Amino acid sequence: MNNNYIQPDNWSIIEEGFDPKNVKSSESIFSIGNGAMGQRANFEEHYSGPTFQGSYIAGVYYPDKTRVGWWKNGYPEYFAKVLNAPNWIGINVLINKEQLDLFNCKDVKNFRRELNMKEGWLSRSFQATLQNDIQIQVDTKRFLSLDLDEVGAISFSVKPLNSDAEISFQPYLDSGITNEDTNWDDKFWNTTNVSHQNNQAFIQAKTMKTDFYTCTFMESSVYINNKSVVTEPNIKADANLASFSYTHPVKQNETYTIHKFGGYVIDRNHDKDSLVSAAKDVLKGATKAGFNLLLEDQEQAWAKIWNMSDITIEGDVAAQQGIRFNIFQLNQTYLGKDSRLNIGPKGFTGEKYGGSTYWDTEAYCIPFYMATKDQNVAKSLLEYRYNHLEKAIENAGKLGFTNGAALYPMVTMNGEECHNEWEITFEEIHRNGAIAFAIYNYFRYTGDFSYIPEKGLEVLIGIARFWQQRATFSTAQNKYVILGVTGPNEYENNVNNNWYTNYIAKWCIDYALETIDKVKEGFSNDYSRIVGKTKITDNELDQWKAVADNMHFPFSEKHDIFLQQDGFLDKELISVADLPKSQRPINQKWSWDRILRSPYIKQADILQGFYFFEDDFSTEELERHFDFYEPFTVHESSLSPCVHSIQAAKLDRMEQAYAFYLRTSRLDLDDYNHEVEEGLHITSMAGTWMSIVEGFGGMRIKNDTLSFDPKIPNEWTGYSFKVNFRHQILKISVTKNETKFELEGTNNLEILVRGKKVNISPDDLVTV
Amino acid sequence: MNNNYIQPDNWSIIEEGFDPKNVKSSESIFSIGNGAMGQRANFEEHYSGPTFQGSYIAGVYYPDKTRVGWWKNGYPEYFAKVLNAPNWIGINVLINKEQLDLFNCKDVKNFRRELNMKEGWLSRSFQATLQNDIQIQVDTKRFLSLDLDEVGAISFSVKPLNSDAEISFQPYLDSGITNEDTNWDDKFWNTTNVSHQNNQAFIQAKTMKTDFYTCTFMESSVYINNKSVVTEPNIKADANLASFSYTHPVKQNETYTIHKFGGYVIDRNHDKDSLVSAAKDVLKGATKAGFNLLLEDQEQAWAKIWNMSDITIEGDVAAQQGIRFNIFQLNQTYLGKDSRLNIGPKGFTGEKYGGSTYWDTEAYCIPFYMATKDQNVAKSLLEYRYNHLEKAIENAGKLGFTNGAALYPMVTMNGEECHNEWEITFEEIHRNGAIAFAIYNYFRYTGDFSYIPEKGLEVLIGIARFWQQRATFSTAQNKYVILGVTGPNEYENNVNNNWYTNYIAKWCIDYALETIDKVKEGFSNDYSRIVGKTKITDNELDQWKAVADNMHFPFSEKHDIFLQQDGFLDKELISVADLPKSQRPINQKWSWDRILRSPYIKQADILQGFYFFEDDFSTEELERHFDFYEPFTVHESSLSPCVHSIQAAKLDRMEQAYAFYLRTSRLDLDDYNHEVEEGLHITSMAGTWMSIVEGFGGMRIKNDTLSFDPKIPNEWTGYSFKVNFRHQILKISVTKNETKFELEGTNNLEILVRGKKVNISPDDLVTV
Repeated sequence: MNNNYIQPDNWSIIEEGFDPKNVKSSESIFSIGNGAMGQRANFEEHYSGPTFQGSYIAGVYYPDKTRVGWWKNGYPEYFAKVLNAPNWIGINVLINKEQLDLFNCKDVKNFRRELNMKEGWLSRSFQATLQNDIQIQVDTKRFLSLDLDEVGAISFSVKPLNSDAEISFQPYLDSGITNEDTNWDDKFWNTTNVSHQNNQAFIQAKTMKTDFYTCTFMESSVYINNKSVVTEPNIKADANLASFSYTHPVKQNETYTIHKFGGYVIDRNHDKDSLVSAAKDVLKGATKAGFNLLLEDQEQAWAKIWNMSDITIEGDVAAQQGIRFNIFQLNQTYLGKDSRLNIGPKGFTGEKYGGSTYWDTEAYCIPFYMATKDQNVAKSLLEYRYNHLEKAIENAGKLGFTNGAALYPMVTMNGEECHNEWEITFEEIHRNGAIAFAIYNYFRYTGDFSYIPEKGLEVLIGIARFWQQRATFSTAQNKYVILGVTGPNEYENNVNNNWYTNYIAKWCIDYALETIDKVKEGFSNDYSRIVGKTKITDNELDQWKAVADNMHFPFSEKHDIFLQQDGFLDKELISVADLPKSQRPINQKWSWDRILRSPYIKQADILQGFYFFEDDFSTEELERHFDFYEPFTVHESSLSPCVHSIQAAKLDRMEQAYAFYLRTSRLDLDDYNHEVEEGLHITSMAGTWMSIVEGFGGMRIKNDTLSFDPKIPNEWTGYSFKVNFRHQILKISVTKNETKFELEGTNNLEILVRGKKVNISPDDLVTV
Repeated sequence: MNNNYIQPDNWSIIEEGFDPKNVKSSESIFSIGNGAMGQRANFEEHYSGPTFQGSYIAGVYYPDKTRVGWWKNGYPEYFAKVLNAPNWIGINVLINKEQLDLFNCKDVKNFRRELNMKEGWLSRSFQATLQNDIQIQVDTKRFLSLDLDEVGAISFSVKPLNSDAEISFQPYLDSGITNEDTNWDDKFWNTTNVSHQNNQAFIQAKTMKTDFYTCTFMESSVYINNKSVVTEPNIKADANLASFSYTHPVKQNETYTIHKFGGYVIDRNHDKDSLVSAAKDVLKGATKAGFNLLLEDQEQAWAKIWNMSDITIEGDVAAQQGIRFNIFQLNQTYLGKDSRLNIGPKGFTGEKYGGSTYWDTEAYCIPFYMATKDQNVAKSLLEYRYNHLEKAIENAGKLGFTNGAALYPMVTMNGEECHNEWEITFEEIHRNGAIAFAIYNYFRYTGDFSYIPEKGLEVLIGIARFWQQRATFSTAQNKYVILGVTGPNEYENNVNNNWYTNYIAKWCIDYALETIDKVKEGFSNDYSRIVGKTKITDNELDQWKAVADNMHFPFSEKHDIFLQQDGFLDKELISVADLPKSQRPINQKWSWDRILRSPYIKQADILQGFYFFEDDFSTEELERHFDFYEPFTVHESSLSPCVHSIQAAKLDRMEQAYAFYLRTSRLDLDDYNHEVEEGLHITSMAGTWMSIVEGFGGMRIKNDTLSFDPKIPNEWTGYSFKVNFRHQILKISVTKNETKFELEGTNNLEILVRGKKVNISPDDLVTV
């Protein structure tokens, strides 16, 4: 564990004391976002120390020309980069003409940073002594409005403590920004116009290649002791910059404050030729409310989100803070308002992983969004893939597949593959399975079949076709095999018959066949349309069935377990516990070949399959596989501990389940992987949610019925969560002795608790 | 087949007619070299059409910062690039102030280019009509001296055919050159000084990072109708250029000629502070002789080489031209004078493959050099690896190996690995085996054991240690396995138990153990020194033996063959013959995953093992394996056809052997792989030599005795070759009816011909 400076608190993330070493990590941890945009917790004022500047607009990316050592046929031409967008938060602060710069003060005292998750804002306060010996008190607060999601607001106050001083606030917009992550040092932004009017400024800029048109804007006003001061700013504008200067003499102990509103309007939501006027409209709305009212709205908006999605934990502040941080960041990243958007593994907190869509969305995020939002949000995420189906068919075509077989990309922004390691791009094909599984999962949870004849079935057909073509018949084994894959455990590459991949491949085909029959029976119009479009024939379906019915699954008689892949038992099976600490994490200590030939598992692989398809296996089988594989698992993927936490809870191994829970929930807060400064692990945060709801709460859908098997870690006295189940809200509160259920809704709900039926009436409290 | 414009000729490579489309290919094919330097056949005069400029100095490289998409632990920091060195051949030619440029003439007639392999020179002649309507006859000749290997000479003559003309020759040196192959567009050369004196000029330049100091030099003289003309040149010099201008009025049908000498002196051979004076010495030697005498020396030097290494073929000009081209290019690339140098896969003919050392040297080149040069040349090549042993131990250390285990790099310039595909760099470890095999092969052929106690054994120990550590014990199989490798067939990556790798690993250990015993018995001083240095113990040797004695070899009972790797039979075994032509070559048509899961073999893998260790297998076994694997072999490596030719000849399949021979011998001349413009495939040319000597001639060493099994392709009436065997030269001439042996030497030689002893006296002709 690297950082350990975050203060325990139930509702806030708090940093006390200023240490430049923590700046980049805190910039990640204290990130704010509103689904439409987000930003790292960079300081408003100039900072000359090490910093990683980042402000991101959802869906705005750049197709950076791919860079590889040795090109392989089929590699995509570009890798989509999430773009550091023009800076609108900047406010340079001059005290008697000396620039405030925390890296260059004589003294910084009482530094405190708070990310208030309950109300959705970020604040800082500190006392600084400048080189000119003037001592000031600084208080700032910043948020990105949930209601007006194109605007953010900053309040920045300076109080001179030991003398009068002339203070300048210089709010600015800057489109002369760069990306840390760039392959060829391309210029990503082209500024087309810089303009200003009264206290407003606008920078119009478009992205190179992708031609996203944006207008970054700001409007500022200043106050002495909270009283508005009318000041004509000094204005500086150049090719990439608009800067205003509000200068005032400020008496000792008087407070000089600037309110700055800023943000982005983009041509996804507005006409590209009217962006300035759209920005003016946004500013009008924001300034009409003013900073304080907007902040109140923000608190209310977050209250609504928390009301639905909060998880309480009693008796364990670290655990409570962890889960709320995860839920908060998920909501900052994605709110499900726009089916053109998705959930990047780092959200709006860094550049890595391109801000793109991975199978994480389907495998980890959809359950969270299904249970804590309206079900349209999950549907939006499904539609995202439906809208990319043609591209997935093209993508499969590049790899030699035909007849409408679809291979969804490993990483994408617009449906095109943009990853280029052959062992991942071409071989980590199990991703296709998660996309099909999410369709099933959505139906299982919501009971809403309508999506399937409408859109989902076409996706299922494309995916089934891919698996049928990708499997080959082994004469030697008299079975279908899937050769040359990378499973969820990316510490194995180009293996044959990865059990998880083979299992989900068979499942996808079976599920597509079953679903085709259901649509044929119940939705004949849709069925005709789909047959017309996809040209499926009975003969083709027979070929699918042959593959699904005769799939090879590597198995060890001796251990009575499925093998992660062919030949797994030939490895030197030394458990992680017997590996010297000095060798960990192996992905930092070992060369790739050594990792590959070792038995060590980066993330749940067979156990991931047991998670998806748990009804197909007995608890004894789960236990055997857990006991065999967990000792070789190094959990060097953020997606690993949550699944293990769920499986451990299922096996009543609550200590282990709790340890995995802490690891997943505080991964970033405690920086387990020594990399939080690059950004947060957003998608695995949904796994954290699952590890409470599905792990400790034991929530499942069994035969269309919500089911629970509540357990509680020793360290906790109680916990609670809510789920939106088919338009009713069920609250579950667990203590060591009992579980309470409360239903907000209109209809009785029959649930299962530890296998027994329990009937809950609306607004009733049922204790089990 | 792409190009088909090379004229058939026994001794020369001839191009007739000017076609800009062929310029880059011809620049490769007509390349010249003298072991110390070499160059593509770029025109001396300005050429504005597509061209690939290249002049290379042996051993002068640049460590270009590695570029990969995703970094893996253990990757080398740089990839050594062969450097395009300063241009000394340039001679701009102005006719009445109009520049001669073949891409921009009104007409070009009678263009003829000849690479005279017998005498070692390159010539061009043509008639060109310039835009100013002056018609000229041009005749050039160029060679790189074998005797004075720092200098080259050019004679360039122009005769105005339809009027008098003022003609300028502008010989120049230019260090403002670039590389086609660069990762980061780094500047590779730093010019430190440009100077001139009388008719001489010098450019001192050093390589960035590696700090190779070089001086490029020239001296020119001009002639009218072969009579010297004293001319004061106009001189132009700038930061990277020294250019002289010799202008003369030339009458119609008079011939104006320039002789230009030029080349490089470098700090590997001279004091870096005296390079200009060293260059002056070189020029003194060259100009003292003059162009014509130097050319005579060249012819004699090549006559000596041919006298030893020529292979004659009667009745088949294409085959004759092919084998001479191969022998010629090998000798242009490497003459064995300097153990710091080695044989790059593209020699001095292009930039690709970094001009670096691969296992090609040990597996393919050493037999050629052993048989056609003094045995010290092969020894030099062995010493090259001995000198890199420490680096190989360091390299293995980076991958986690200890205790003096050595892993030789896949690609190197100075002993350090400089390749960065994980599946090759980390996994194509069979290369280590070829390096050990070459030591054995050298002793087997030369009978010179002295190298082994002196140096070779230390290399064998390092390699054996690597194999012992790299193998792991599989409890499941009760055998040692070698997991996660890439075999010689690079169309399989990260496979388990590649048969070739396992076999050579076992062999290396066995051979090291046997050799340790031999040295212990016969060379006790060396033995003590080596034990002291390597700290081998009986206990360690027992561990080696355990691995060698219990190695797993994948085998199919059903087919009665060894499997290329575990699981090979699970593939869809569709033979190459049944693959649509449109899918070939698969490395240009298929994505990497598709290649990997296919059964297709890039180059001989199991058959390569059967070639090295043929005495371990019966002819029937060879036949079974040939019949099983050849149908899946696509020969998309230049190193494949030669081994297949040898094996086919052994199996008396002469038509197949001949087809493979043509493919290997004319690979570049006929541009089978559509890429000759990038440079020639030098190392596989040694394989061509083997396919005649070992394939058709059936030459082997059996129990210390030279053995032959001569066969002859139907298409030939006869062929002959010579081998230097233990300081005596044996000439073998084969016709359809008989084989003749002639011995140049002093001692009787007993050989085996088709298993029967034949005694040959010096200067006697024995017919069998």
